Amino acid sequence: MELKVIIAIVRSDALQAVESRLQQAGVQGITVTQSKGYGEYRNLFTSDWMSGGVRLEIYTAAHEVDAIVKTIIDAAHTGEPGDGLVAVLPVDRVFSVRSRSETVPNRPRS
Amino acid sequence: MELKVIIAIVRSDALQAVESRLQQAGVQGITVTQSKGYGEYRNLFTSDWMSGGVRLEIYTAAHEVDAIVKTIIDAAHTGEPGDGLVAVLPVDRVFSVRSRSETVPNRPRS
Amino acid sequence: MELKVIIAIVRSDALQAVESRLQQAGVQGITVTQSKGYGEYRNLFTSDWMSGGVRLEIYTAAHEVDAIVKTIIDAAHTGEPGDGLVAVLPVDRVFSVRSRSETVPNRPRS
Repeated sequence: MELKVIIAIVRSDALQAVESRLQQAGVQGITVTQSKGYGEYRNLFTSDWMSGGVRLEIYTAAHEVDAIVKTIIDAAHTGEPGDGLVAVLPVDRVFSVRSRSETVPNRPRS
Repeated sequence: MELKVIIAIVRSDALQAVESRLQQAGVQGITVTQSKGYGEYRNLFTSDWMSGGVRLEIYTAAHEVDAIVKTIIDAAHTGEPGDGLVAVLPVDRVFSVRSRSETVPNRPRS
Repeated sequence: MELKVIIAIVRSDALQAVESRLQQAGVQGITVTQSKGYGEYRNLFTSDWMSGGVRLEIYTAAHEVDAIVKTIIDAAHTGEPGDGLVAVLPVDRVFSVRSRSETVPNRPRS
């Protein structure tokens, strides 16, 4: 099965909404990292050039990508500069450390 | 030479064992980031949904990937939920900042 | 348009110079994460094996990659161990959260 990773860089204050919507959509695993951004991602209301952001990383089957991307954008969108971006990258393989075998993360419950 | 990046998201308390085994296996370069996870990566023994994790990133030649993935899984496996995952992604090129030229990181000593 | 992500892992004290040069070169969006490295990236002048580093992530069009990689290396190079690395990975698609549509980040101003 073709795998992808979705990397979303969004405002820190959008994190809770994004996580909540992803859980409702059945996304079972997310990795979150604190990050800083500047440039087109910056928050114009902060006093300095750098602004706080979070980086989400979600491994999933390719056919789940469009729905997950839409969920993230719906939850993180404000329309202001600094809303961030969502990128989709190819992945060769994913292994579960618990089962010691290849896995398809975030497979929908059906 | 074909290059890959191995991204491992494991329990924070597995980090020392993973690093130690990778060094013994001759892996010369690792980048470690603190992260948070939820969902299938969560630690059921923490009181909240989010649990601490670490994200390791290792650039290497494609033919080294299977051995490095096995080393990480052997060191990080507990069999409980929250053990994390290991992903393999394609990489076009890697440059050494010190030599200013293309490089193959984590080439085994032979 | 073909997209790539440039991931640079450099010394923490090189961050300001790298950001400044990238801004001068018209790079509009960078995500920065604190990280730790060891192995060939280590700083031999620190007392412990782990040393501080930063991880930069820049999404851009494929034809911008060589210039951005050169800018990063020029700004981060000291010639000593621990200078770090720059990697280039393929990207399928990037979406702007603000516009809710696909985008080409860090397109040069021309």
